[in-house]
Amino acid sequence: MGSSFGKLFTISTFGESHGGGVGVIIDGCPPRLELDINEIQNDLNRRRPGQSKITTPRNESDEVEILSGLLGNKTLGTPIAMVVRNKDHRPKDYSEIKKTFRPSHADATYQKKYGIQASSGGGRASARETIGRVAAGSVAKQLLTKFAKTEILAWVKRIHDIEAEIHPSEVTFDEIEKNIVRCPNQSAADLMIQRVEAFGKEGDSCGGVIECVVRNPPIGLGMPVFDKLEADLAKALMSLPATKGFEVGSGFGGTYLKGSEHNDPFLPSDSNQLKTATNNSGGIQGGISNGEDIVLRVGFKPTATIRKSQKTIDEDGNAITLKATGRHDPCVLPRAVPMVEAMVALVLADHLLRQRGQCTD
Amino acid sequence: MGSSFGKLFTISTFGESHGGGVGVIIDGCPPRLELDINEIQNDLNRRRPGQSKITTPRNESDEVEILSGLLGNKTLGTPIAMVVRNKDHRPKDYSEIKKTFRPSHADATYQKKYGIQASSGGGRASARETIGRVAAGSVAKQLLTKFAKTEILAWVKRIHDIEAEIHPSEVTFDEIEKNIVRCPNQSAADLMIQRVEAFGKEGDSCGGVIECVVRNPPIGLGMPVFDKLEADLAKALMSLPATKGFEVGSGFGGTYLKGSEHNDPFLPSDSNQLKTATNNSGGIQGGISNGEDIVLRVGFKPTATIRKSQKTIDEDGNAITLKATGRHDPCVLPRAVPMVEAMVALVLADHLLRQRGQCTD
Amino acid sequence: MGSSFGKLFTISTFGESHGGGVGVIIDGCPPRLELDINEIQNDLNRRRPGQSKITTPRNESDEVEILSGLLGNKTLGTPIAMVVRNKDHRPKDYSEIKKTFRPSHADATYQKKYGIQASSGGGRASARETIGRVAAGSVAKQLLTKFAKTEILAWVKRIHDIEAEIHPSEVTFDEIEKNIVRCPNQSAADLMIQRVEAFGKEGDSCGGVIECVVRNPPIGLGMPVFDKLEADLAKALMSLPATKGFEVGSGFGGTYLKGSEHNDPFLPSDSNQLKTATNNSGGIQGGISNGEDIVLRVGFKPTATIRKSQKTIDEDGNAITLKATGRHDPCVLPRAVPMVEAMVALVLADHLLRQRGQCTD
Amino acid sequence: MGSSFGKLFTISTFGESHGGGVGVIIDGCPPRLELDINEIQNDLNRRRPGQSKITTPRNESDEVEILSGLLGNKTLGTPIAMVVRNKDHRPKDYSEIKKTFRPSHADATYQKKYGIQASSGGGRASARETIGRVAAGSVAKQLLTKFAKTEILAWVKRIHDIEAEIHPSEVTFDEIEKNIVRCPNQSAADLMIQRVEAFGKEGDSCGGVIECVVRNPPIGLGMPVFDKLEADLAKALMSLPATKGFEVGSGFGGTYLKGSEHNDPFLPSDSNQLKTATNNSGGIQGGISNGEDIVLRVGFKPTATIRKSQKTIDEDGNAITLKATGRHDPCVLPRAVPMVEAMVALVLADHLLRQRGQCTD
Repeated sequence: MGSSFGKLFTISTFGESHGGGVGVIIDGCPPRLELDINEIQNDLNRRRPGQSKITTPRNESDEVEILSGLLGNKTLGTPIAMVVRNKDHRPKDYSEIKKTFRPSHADATYQKKYGIQASSGGGRASARETIGRVAAGSVAKQLLTKFAKTEILAWVKRIHDIEAEIHPSEVTFDEIEKNIVRCPNQSAADLMIQRVEAFGKEGDSCGGVIECVVRNPPIGLGMPVFDKLEADLAKALMSLPATKGFEVGSGFGGTYLKGSEHNDPFLPSDSNQLKTATNNSGGIQGGISNGEDIVLRVGFKPTATIRKSQKTIDEDGNAITLKATGRHDPCVLPRAVPMVEAMVALVLADHLLRQRGQCTD
Repeated sequence: MGSSFGKLFTISTFGESHGGGVGVIIDGCPPRLELDINEIQNDLNRRRPGQSKITTPRNESDEVEILSGLLGNKTLGTPIAMVVRNKDHRPKDYSEIKKTFRPSHADATYQKKYGIQASSGGGRASARETIGRVAAGSVAKQLLTKFAKTEILAWVKRIHDIEAEIHPSEVTFDEIEKNIVRCPNQSAADLMIQRVEAFGKEGDSCGGVIECVVRNPPIGLGMPVFDKLEADLAKALMSLPATKGFEVGSGFGGTYLKGSEHNDPFLPSDSNQLKTATNNSGGIQGGISNGEDIVLRVGFKPTATIRKSQKTIDEDGNAITLKATGRHDPCVLPRAVPMVEAMVALVLADHLLRQRGQCTD
Repeated sequence: MGSSFGKLFTISTFGESHGGGVGVIIDGCPPRLELDINEIQNDLNRRRPGQSKITTPRNESDEVEILSGLLGNKTLGTPIAMVVRNKDHRPKDYSEIKKTFRPSHADATYQKKYGIQASSGGGRASARETIGRVAAGSVAKQLLTKFAKTEILAWVKRIHDIEAEIHPSEVTFDEIEKNIVRCPNQSAADLMIQRVEAFGKEGDSCGGVIECVVRNPPIGLGMPVFDKLEADLAKALMSLPATKGFEVGSGFGGTYLKGSEHNDPFLPSDSNQLKTATNNSGGIQGGISNGEDIVLRVGFKPTATIRKSQKTIDEDGNAITLKATGRHDPCVLPRAVPMVEAMVALVLADHLLRQRGQCTD
Repeated sequence: MGSSFGKLFTISTFGESHGGGVGVIIDGCPPRLELDINEIQNDLNRRRPGQSKITTPRNESDEVEILSGLLGNKTLGTPIAMVVRNKDHRPKDYSEIKKTFRPSHADATYQKKYGIQASSGGGRASARETIGRVAAGSVAKQLLTKFAKTEILAWVKRIHDIEAEIHPSEVTFDEIEKNIVRCPNQSAADLMIQRVEAFGKEGDSCGGVIECVVRNPPIGLGMPVFDKLEADLAKALMSLPATKGFEVGSGFGGTYLKGSEHNDPFLPSDSNQLKTATNNSGGIQGGISNGEDIVLRVGFKPTATIRKSQKTIDEDGNAITLKATGRHDPCVLPRAVPMVEAMVALVLADHLLRQRGQCTD
C-alpha cells in the first residue's frame, strides 16, 4: 500500500514518532553485497535529531539493529530488516496538542482520513519515519557504488532568502559536512546558521531548497512512459515530509528559454558515452538517464510546528489559540540532506535492477 | 512495468507515433458508471495535433474505438480497451533523422537503453502516447464527478516570459477554451499566441507553465508515506513529455516565507469540512487532501525538435549539423492542458478507490 | 487490478466474448527479440473455437493484429499490443440465458459483484479472454527459447475416467498435435475422442487433467517466500477458466509416501547442473527451480454450459428450468492445452527477468 | 519483490531461522479495528515449535512484540510491525549440514540462485518465516470477523494413508484443537498420532492433506481474470513450505464427473443470497465468491529433513552420505493448520478491501 516503494529493490517502512520503534524491510537486494554497516549508522547520524544547535534537541541515538538478511555483513538476497528504537519520546509534550489541529500539519487530515490518530507526536507524519528511508538508502548507495561507481551528493542550496552559489559538478562530501547546515559554500552557510538560530529564538521557522547531484549514474535507467526516471525521482522526493516543489536540470528556469537556447546538443565522442553541451536536461532525456550528471532541486516549506502563538481550531471546529511547546526543528533542511540522498539512491537502485532485468543480453 | 499507472484504477497504455495505433486499457473502473463517450472524444480533440495555427499541422482525427468493458455506455467493471488508429504519419519526414541523435530528444537514450528504436517519429517518446492518458483521464474525470462532484481544470499560466494573472478559484472551462492557447486571461493569451507564432516562423520553440486546480476534491486521499497525494501527482505530471518541474500550493515561492507567514491556519467551522485561511498547502497536508482546492503547476521545456540548424552527433558519435524537416509543435503547452487534467484525474480516481477500500466503514 | 499478470514481463488483457475484440498488452519484453509472428498465430489456431468436431462450432479466425512495440519483427522493448476481432458472435443465442443464472457458470457471481454483466455470452468469463494469454504466452515461449533453450509442452493426460500412460520426459510436440484431443498416447486419444463425442451428443460435458513439462528451465527462478515458483505457477493455472486443482512433481500422490521414499537425492555430478534421482520435487525445491524438468498437472471441471435440461433460478431467485441452446465445448481440455503452455511460459519469463534483475553479477 | 503479498491489505515478511528475529509489516489495514492481541499470540502458539510430542522439540516462546500501527489496541491505519525474536537456535546443529545439499530441501537451489546462503538452519526457507504469515493472518481473521462475520477453520484431513471422514460444514474449532494432531475426527486422530510418533522414532517423516472451510465469506470477492479468488488462494497456499498440491470444491475428484453430475444448480431463494445444491464449486464461480462455504485442500509432502541416512552430494557435487542431527518435525501438518488459516484469511482480507474499493456505491 502506501508504505512500500520500488518494484524490484523494494522497501517497506513502519513506525510512528512515539511507538516502540521505526524501521524498514529491504526486499530484492542483490545477494553477496558486502555492506559497510558503519556507513548505514553514519547516514542515520547525519539525519538524527539533536545533532546540532539548529536542530530539535530531542535526543535519540537512532542505533540501527539488523534482524535479518545478512551473513556477517554480506547480503543473502533475502529481506533485510532494520529497526531503530524510539527512546527519548515525551508524550506529554503533545498532550495539549492532541485535541488541536496544528496549522499546515497532518493532525487534521489524518483524523479525517483514518478517523483516529497517534495520541502524541506527529504519528506516522513525524520525520521519525524517514529513519527507514535513510537506512535503506544507505544500502542502495553502496549497491550503486559497487555496480556503477555512482556518487550521490545533496546539500543545502538556499535557506529562507539566502541562496548559495554552488557548482554541482565540483561539490565534495567533505565541503558539505564541514558545517552544521550542510551548505558547501561556507560564507553562505554562516549566514544561514545565523538566520535559522534567529528564527528559532523567535519561535518561528524557515524553509529553502536542497540541491542534489548524481555523478556517474548508470546509463539507460528509466521506464517510459509512467516510470520515467524524473517521474520516479519527483515522486520519491515529493514523498518526503514538508516538500512543496521539485525540478530537474534547468527546471522552471529553463522554461523561460527558446528551444535553440535550451537544447542540449550532443558533443562528438568516440567513446560509447553520451556527452552533452549544457546538461540543461539534468542527465535525463526521454525519461531515461543519458550518463551525464543528474541534477535536481527540492523545495521544503518552513516547519509547520512553531512556538509563536497561532489561531486554529480543535477537533470539533472551535476556534482556539495554539502555543506549541514540544521540541521542533526551526528548519528541516540540514537533516533532510541525507533523506534526499537516500530517496534518489532508492530510485536509481530500483531502476538499475529493472534495467538489468529487461535489457541484459 | 513502465507503461502501467495506478494501483486500483489502473491504466496500461501502448503505441508509438508511427505504428498501427495507440491506446489504453483501464482495469478496475467501478461498474455501472454511465460514460459520456462524446466527452472522451472531446478531450482527445483538445489534445489532437492540427487543432490550430500554433500546433503541429499533422492531421489526425484521433477517433477513439472502445473494444471492451461497456454494456452500451455503462461500465461492466471489467477492462475497458480504447484504441486510436495512426492515420497521417509520414515516415519519410524522419528518414534523415533516423541516424541522428536530436538534441534534448529521446533518440540517444532509447538507443542506449534498448539498443534499438522505432524507425521513424519519436516512437514511444512521441506525444502520440498521451492519447491513452487523455482517453483514460476522461473516464477518471467522469468517475470523480459522479462520486464527489470534483471539477479539474488546467490552463496555460505562462508561455516564454509572458505570465498571465489568473485566480485558480475563479477560472472557468469556457474562459480556458475561448482561445487556442488555452489561457483564461485573454490579453495575456493574445500576446502568447503572437509569441508562439513568431518563434514557429523562426523555426524555434518555447515552453512555459501550466497551472491546474481541483475543486471539491474528495477529502482524505493520499497514502502516507510514499504514496502521498502530492508525490503521486508529481510522478503523474513529471511523466508527461517535456516536463522539468512540479510544485503544489505555495510551491518554491512558499519556501521563501517564515513558518508564521506560510502556515495555513484552520478556520472555525461547524461543518465537517476543513477550511484553511491561505491554502498555501494547496489542499494537501501530511500527504492527504484536506478538501480545499488542490492547486499545482508544471513547467514544460521548449519543444526539443526545432527547424533551426543545430550541432549534434549521429549514432556513431560523429559531429553533424541537423536541420529538422518534419511537423512539430512550436509550443506543447496548449495541447498539454488536457494531458495535465487527465493525469491529475487518474491520480485522484486511483486514490479515491484506495481510500474507499481501506477506510470505508 | 485483476487483469494484469507478472511483475517485469507484465501482460494486461481485455475483452469479452461479444464485444468489439479481445487482446493483450505485453509491457517489459526485452528489446531486440526476433519474433516469429506465425508462431503466435499457430498457438492462437491451436486455441481457436471450431477447430475440430469435439470443440464448439463457433467459427472465429482469431487473426492477431499487432499494433505496437515492434520494428519489423524485432521487439522495441516498449509495450506490444495485440488485438483479435470478435467476428462470429450471435448475441441472440444467449438472449434466453440473459435473465438466467446458469449453474456453475459466472452469471450469478458477476451480477452480485458488479451489479451488471455483458448482455450476451460469458462476457469476461468467456474463454475468449484466453486469446490474450495465448498470444502473449507465445512471445514468452520465444523469449525462453532464445535465452535458455527452454521447451514447454502440455498435453491431455485424462478425460473423464480415461487416463493415458505418458512419460513427461519423452513426449514430443508432434505426438501431441497428431490428434484432435491433444493426447500423445494414441490409443487413449481414440477412446477420449469417442467419449467426448458421446457426451456432446447427449448434451452433456466432461473434464479431466492436463499435464505439462518444462524441459531445460533456467535454474534459480522463484522468489521466496510468496512468489515461490510453484506458487506463481499455481496462481497462473488456477486463473484459467474451469480449473479445480493444481499439483507439482509428485503432487497429492507424493503425500502418501514417507520422507525416506519421497526425498529426491542429488546425484553426484561434476557439472554445475543439479541432478536429482526421482524428480519427485517436479524441478522445484524451496520454491526455486533446480534445473530438472518442471512437471505439473491441472484439473479442469466438465464444461458448465450443457444442453441437457437443468433446474436453476433467474436473476430474481425464481426457480426455472434451463435448456441452453448456444454453441459450447463438450470438453475444454483440447483447447486448454495451449492455454496451460502460455501461462507456464508467462510465469517463467517473468521470473527469468526478475532473477536477472536481482542476481546478475 | 518476493516477500510481499496482497495489493491493498499488504504484508511484507522478513527473517531467517538463525537471525536476530522474524516478523512482518501489515500495510493498508483499515483503521479503528479493535485488535485482540491475545488472539494473535494464540495463533502463534498453535504454530510454535515444541508444542507437542509430535513436533520438533525446538523451544521458542515466539512472543510477538508490536512496534507500530496501534493506539492501544486500535489500528491507526498506518503500518503495523510485529517482531518475534529467535531465542533457542543452535547453529552447531547444522554445521555438518552447511556444506551438504540436503535432499528435497532448499540448500542447493538457494546456493544456485543467490550464490550464498544462511550459515545455519533453513535460512529463509525455514518454517520460522511463517511466523509473519500467522501473526498477520490473525489480524486478517479479526478484520473478516468484524466486517462479515466470516469464520475460517482448517484441520488435518489425512496423514500418510490415514484419511479422516470429516464434514466441512459441521467442524468446530474446539474439535480441531482437542488433540495435538488437529484432526477433528478423534478416532482418526489417535491413529495419526501413533503413525507420526512411529515414523519419528524411525528417523523418518510423513505428509498428508489439510482441509479448510470458510463460512460466511463476503460475496463478490475475486478479480477476473488473473486474480480470481481460487487463483490467489492457490498461490497463497502453494507458497507455504512443503506444499505439493491444491484443490477447491470438488477438486481433482470432480473432474471425473459429467457436467450434468458436477454442475451446482442454484436453489430458489427470496433472499439476496445465492444458494447452490451441491457446492461442488467450493463457494467460487467464475473466480468470484458466491457466498456459499469456500472449501479447499492442500497437500503437504513428508518433511524433507529426516534422521535416516541418505545419499546426496556436497556443494562441490561429490557423493556423500547424510545423517541429519538437528531437531525437526516428523510431520509438518499439525503446525501447518494455523498457517493455512492465515493465508486464506490474508487473501480474503485483501480481496474484501479491493472489492470495497472498486464496487462500493
